[in-house]
Amino acid sequence: MRFAKGHGTQNDFIVLPDFDDALGLTPELVQRLCDRRAGIGADGVLRVVPADAPSAVSALHDAGLAPVPPDADGLSPEWFMDYRNSDGSLAEMCGNGIRVFARYLLDHRLAGTLAFTVGTRAGWRKVRAEPDGSVTAEMGVPAILGQGRAVIGGLSCTGLRISLGNPHLAVLADGPVESYDLSAAPLLDPAEFPDGANVEVVRLTGDRRAEMRVYERGSGPTHSCGTGAVAAAVAAALAGASAGTLPALVPDSASGTWAMQVPGGKLDVTLVGTAALLGGPAVIVAEGELDPVWLSAVPAGSLPGR
Amino acid sequence: MRFAKGHGTQNDFIVLPDFDDALGLTPELVQRLCDRRAGIGADGVLRVVPADAPSAVSALHDAGLAPVPPDADGLSPEWFMDYRNSDGSLAEMCGNGIRVFARYLLDHRLAGTLAFTVGTRAGWRKVRAEPDGSVTAEMGVPAILGQGRAVIGGLSCTGLRISLGNPHLAVLADGPVESYDLSAAPLLDPAEFPDGANVEVVRLTGDRRAEMRVYERGSGPTHSCGTGAVAAAVAAALAGASAGTLPALVPDSASGTWAMQVPGGKLDVTLVGTAALLGGPAVIVAEGELDPVWLSAVPAGSLPGR
Repeated sequence: MRFAKGHGTQNDFIVLPDFDDALGLTPELVQRLCDRRAGIGADGVLRVVPADAPSAVSALHDAGLAPVPPDADGLSPEWFMDYRNSDGSLAEMCGNGIRVFARYLLDHRLAGTLAFTVGTRAGWRKVRAEPDGSVTAEMGVPAILGQGRAVIGGLSCTGLRISLGNPHLAVLADGPVESYDLSAAPLLDPAEFPDGANVEVVRLTGDRRAEMRVYERGSGPTHSCGTGAVAAAVAAALAGASAGTLPALVPDSASGTWAMQVPGGKLDVTLVGTAALLGGPAVIVAEGELDPVWLSAVPAGSLPGR
Repeated sequence: MRFAKGHGTQNDFIVLPDFDDALGLTPELVQRLCDRRAGIGADGVLRVVPADAPSAVSALHDAGLAPVPPDADGLSPEWFMDYRNSDGSLAEMCGNGIRVFARYLLDHRLAGTLAFTVGTRAGWRKVRAEPDGSVTAEMGVPAILGQGRAVIGGLSCTGLRISLGNPHLAVLADGPVESYDLSAAPLLDPAEFPDGANVEVVRLTGDRRAEMRVYERGSGPTHSCGTGAVAAAVAAALAGASAGTLPALVPDSASGTWAMQVPGGKLDVTLVGTAALLGGPAVIVAEGELDPVWLSAVPAGSLPGR
């Protein structure tokens, strides 16, 4: 079984090419692959499958999506990103993951053009290779849901509730983002966040520049979070708005590109009317072959190693 | 540049075959390779180099060692293990590392026989492939230096000071090993441990059976430590001895094989007279090629990702 390992701002992934749709990826295998000591180690797995393969057709159908992207030209191949979290569960989308997925297709000349569309469980998403080697991806429409609250390391904070498909609370920081204790999960109001949320702490550092830290629901403090960077940029762009005048969508007047510094590097978030783009480095570290003995082994008597 | 990733009881390593002694491995590259998010991720790097290659000859000479092992038959190739910690520093020996190193040579039919000798900066060490796929390695002579003390999570503890080339304090636990807080470095008496020490907490669980947890000097709480398992087995074997009657070496009466349960699996420690052997699983997870773009890239603006 071939694999690649890559990362976008230190959000890292194992890419599994599966052109014949034959891998039969189980949650157990995903967990073993993502184990940082007994496996390869990663935040998630990106299975690369043609969009017309049975598992992709089925996933697109289940998500209520068209079987080909709206901009299909009939010439370029279409690909589906089968994304799995490191615990083996399915996820709709991953902003850094889709950029690494695109880098893999580009490196292997599997995309017909430098800009193309990738199927995900959250919809068809455009991606684009930039001249500097970075990759930009369409992130969907940020929905502004109103104010929300969290207790972060004992400190009561107010922020913006924002949805990028997944729920976020983006808090504008009073001081350095390092002064907020994100080592443990922030406390949220279940009435505001029935499914929990990712929590971002954001500080403006210049003209359309900000730094942020993030606590990801289910993962803890991570080095980067694509949807979190978009939510943080939205909160930064609306920093002047009072609670009573919050728009439901990012207004045209807030359009522009934000340089967002995350612990793992720099991401560019472009807010264009109601849409959002995420740009930044997408790096393949290595490629190779999984050892057949390791693949066939039943894990025995070991504690989780992440 | 080719690589393999492997582990022994979740102590994990990047193997770099360097048959031409041409890699010019720098501390910076070791750090990048061992970075768990922006690189491959591992506890250390094992460079595989012929024992008659210039860098190996020089390292063996610097360590005051013979340029060929005492059991050389002139027919089998001789190999040198150039071990580096994840921070890029050199280390003399690594009990789990040498077992993974041997597994790599065996898988690639680079060892002439199932039992052979590997050069390390700590001396020539015999290794042996077992019928069950595990690998056993010679660990040198445990030296018993007397009693020592540590404060572990606020608790004052007494244990045995043992040297396996590197210093250890092995503490026999009063209760479950999980009840000791090894999340932070235990406090040691600098007079007893001028260079610090690895600290093991050991509990006897049956006839020549014990479980242990370890805090590794410079690494923190790890899933496994080969020299730590040997030190813990020595402490377990001498559990009945009073402070006044401690031998300097393991007595013949304490000979035998101890099953040591570590967080990452099970290790077998055999004490034979004055020597010690370490046996257990040695697994290659994957092999491949580092991406040339990644290899050539200068790390920029990222925090350490381990």
